Amino acid sequence: MAKSRAAFRLPKRDYEARVPALRADLVQMQVDLQHAPFPVLLVVAGDEAAGKGEIVNLLNGWLDPRGVETFAFHAPTDEERERPPMWRYWRCLPPRGRMAIYAGGWHTDALAEDPHTPAEFAHFRATLRRLAHFEHLLAADGALIVKLWLRLPKEAQRARLRELEEDPDTAWRVTPADWQSHRDYDRRAELAADMRRATHRPGAPWHVIDAIDSRARNLTVGETLLARFRTHLRAQKKVPRPAKPRRITPLRPAGREKLLALSLDQVLSEESYQLKRDKWLGRLNRAVRSAAERGRSIVWVFEGWDAAGKGGAIRRLTSAIDARDCRVIPVAKPTDEEKSHHYLWRFWRHVPRAGRVTIYDRSWFGRVLVERIEGFCREDEWRRAFGELNDFEQQLTEHGIIVLKFWLQLSREEQLRRFRHREETDYKRHKINAEDWRNRRQWPAYEIAVGDMLALTQHAGAPWHLVPADNKRHARLEILKVSCKQIAAALGE
Amino acid sequence: MAKSRAAFRLPKRDYEARVPALRADLVQMQVDLQHAPFPVLLVVAGDEAAGKGEIVNLLNGWLDPRGVETFAFHAPTDEERERPPMWRYWRCLPPRGRMAIYAGGWHTDALAEDPHTPAEFAHFRATLRRLAHFEHLLAADGALIVKLWLRLPKEAQRARLRELEEDPDTAWRVTPADWQSHRDYDRRAELAADMRRATHRPGAPWHVIDAIDSRARNLTVGETLLARFRTHLRAQKKVPRPAKPRRITPLRPAGREKLLALSLDQVLSEESYQLKRDKWLGRLNRAVRSAAERGRSIVWVFEGWDAAGKGGAIRRLTSAIDARDCRVIPVAKPTDEEKSHHYLWRFWRHVPRAGRVTIYDRSWFGRVLVERIEGFCREDEWRRAFGELNDFEQQLTEHGIIVLKFWLQLSREEQLRRFRHREETDYKRHKINAEDWRNRRQWPAYEIAVGDMLALTQHAGAPWHLVPADNKRHARLEILKVSCKQIAAALGE
Repeated sequence: MAKSRAAFRLPKRDYEARVPALRADLVQMQVDLQHAPFPVLLVVAGDEAAGKGEIVNLLNGWLDPRGVETFAFHAPTDEERERPPMWRYWRCLPPRGRMAIYAGGWHTDALAEDPHTPAEFAHFRATLRRLAHFEHLLAADGALIVKLWLRLPKEAQRARLRELEEDPDTAWRVTPADWQSHRDYDRRAELAADMRRATHRPGAPWHVIDAIDSRARNLTVGETLLARFRTHLRAQKKVPRPAKPRRITPLRPAGREKLLALSLDQVLSEESYQLKRDKWLGRLNRAVRSAAERGRSIVWVFEGWDAAGKGGAIRRLTSAIDARDCRVIPVAKPTDEEKSHHYLWRFWRHVPRAGRVTIYDRSWFGRVLVERIEGFCREDEWRRAFGELNDFEQQLTEHGIIVLKFWLQLSREEQLRRFRHREETDYKRHKINAEDWRNRRQWPAYEIAVGDMLALTQHAGAPWHLVPADNKRHARLEILKVSCKQIAAALGE
Repeated sequence: MAKSRAAFRLPKRDYEARVPALRADLVQMQVDLQHAPFPVLLVVAGDEAAGKGEIVNLLNGWLDPRGVETFAFHAPTDEERERPPMWRYWRCLPPRGRMAIYAGGWHTDALAEDPHTPAEFAHFRATLRRLAHFEHLLAADGALIVKLWLRLPKEAQRARLRELEEDPDTAWRVTPADWQSHRDYDRRAELAADMRRATHRPGAPWHVIDAIDSRARNLTVGETLLARFRTHLRAQKKVPRPAKPRRITPLRPAGREKLLALSLDQVLSEESYQLKRDKWLGRLNRAVRSAAERGRSIVWVFEGWDAAGKGGAIRRLTSAIDARDCRVIPVAKPTDEEKSHHYLWRFWRHVPRAGRVTIYDRSWFGRVLVERIEGFCREDEWRRAFGELNDFEQQLTEHGIIVLKFWLQLSREEQLRRFRHREETDYKRHKINAEDWRNRRQWPAYEIAVGDMLALTQHAGAPWHLVPADNKRHARLEILKVSCKQIAAALGE
């Protein structure tokens, strides 16, 4: 065996002759990356003993370590366990212009599921679909994703483990579990092949690299990364800039029709409101505590016209929830750290821990509302977003998070009344500015975008609640009632 | 008792008459805060059953919840336990223009130490000193810190607990531990008084508020916050803006003298270097693994002249460390999230978990170097920083983190050679720009600032290592050697 392997080995002097140019190219890549509009995600995965750790360390040696960060996913921390599984990967994403190396990647976590029963296989396949979606999402946003699988055949693995064992300096690295895994080689290899097939997609393909000859392996890794980077950089330069659309045409006219059909003439006296409100606030308080006791988190999402009363509705809600367990996230202009990540990153950041509450005052739906209308993103981006948003919410609900989505519907006349009232009232004047008036002129465009949003992001796990909001009291009560009911239903009460 | 207490109660109608104006003022405060150059930290602490939770929720009801975040410190998560105790508070600091409410604050965590033995008391006092320092640090940076202690006398506490027990809706809130704590009232009250004395400082005073009458308590809380805010806002407007100093005068000339006395004429042949390097890289690898096995983290800090070889030295270091356990943090222009916090916040963010390594390429010492020289901060700020930096490092070392600080000393002639070489070399040109030349002209000023830094931030727990860097090979070897030795000493090897 040793002999036949030797035949395939890249001679040391050839290797050493080629490395300097490769290193120089890689460092130049990092310089170019600094000004590139995308991040680089490099996954280094592979068979046991194929040299994943060596490659990660080699690249860190070749590259300038100041421009790259390496992540290895050990056992999840409790802060990670209390969130949907993908949260730990989202928090390790590099910003545009930077690079991350993932030792093992999320794929190794998935393979650790080591499925045997049909139920376990079903779970495994669901995990893989989620990973494929995650990568698709990032790739579509422009990220360069390079996934390497270092392949080591069974015989070579045995030889490599023996070699490590025989050297006193490396013997500690070989554990009984490694030999156990070696005996199970065929099954594991098949599982890994399944995994690669399920996550091999345009924008995130696998590169299977022969790891028998470590010198050839090293060069192939560097060259693969470089080639992908160069192609990607060229392609990204051709991506058109977003532009403000000339007109907005509906994708699903039924959504807008439903919105317009909503009756807005509710009446509710102050006394009647107060009486009912206190009852529902009490119920809400119990419902939220009941959810917390079971470790279930709650996410409220408030969208609606300017001056529709989102802030007031949120204040009524929070008055019934222990402030110590609740965060309100006002979604306005992103910070520069947020801008340099995928648009969903800023929302993933605030996903609550087990038993806690996050209230988003405006939300991820900005992607298909203001960003669509103002042309802050391209048409293909907002079109794709409907599916991305649904998937994001599905990840929340699958983790047991209760997601409550409200659209506060206002008549254009009532908005005008409220704008004027704000302008005339000293302590409300700060709540109105030129942008509000500009948005108001876009009313018909927003009606179309809102209609599409309601129709295309409506799903059983996180249904939209349309709330007539011309009457503030009625709207607040409606929100309380609907929230109580949806929480009770989610808890099976 | 009930009768005599009744005599002191604020009548409900008086209360209700005063609340609306107070609420309006508080909301106006939030509007003003948005543009204020400081954050607001409100601590709500107090005796058991004095209504801390009620106050926190009341304020969340009175305020616009979108401008305030509430934190309660439950049992630390594992990510928190693996860092110095103050890390969990640093991560919950609001940015300028925002407000945080701390239910119980860090003070309640300190009181939970519940000291009995002399050793426990010594630990308790050390905790209090740390808290006082933390608050002093934030207050000096302009933060408004309002600390409320809700006081409930023993008799009133008993009455309140009984009252809660008798109401079926609140009975669950009274636990045997509450009665236990009640029987221990006097000792606990004394401990709390000690805590308040130890943390009652200008800029972070305690306001002890009588909590017997809940209506009077509520008004006092709101009015206290408001009064402190208004005074603070006026005072902050008078704080002078930083300005570039006309000349730099040394605080500790001995530091600069020591720097200049350093011999820079080391010679080391390439062969001799390679031989020794590999030996020391091996040792470093073992030392870092040995530290990791004991859960000890390592922080490297690299400071030095432009082109002194920090990057190269860091690459040699990282070549001996498993990249999966190591992060390199290049410290350049802060992000806007970083700018809106205390200057140490961006360094606290990256403090490593147990057994991990963080390498800072430039660091917190920028405060007393570039910020001092360019006038990015005021004189009182950089003068105060020496103590703040020492304290920060002390917190790291007390937690068991090994802190290795290097200053790479270069001659002005050698810097010129390297600058020119960079300009002449294609793949190095990106490493030099106009700012480097500007900094170079400031050489004498930097010599003074560096000298002061070396003299004033030199301490046994985290000593400075001055490394002659005109000879790159010698410098790299020196860094490896010194690192190995300091790690071994810290591990008691």
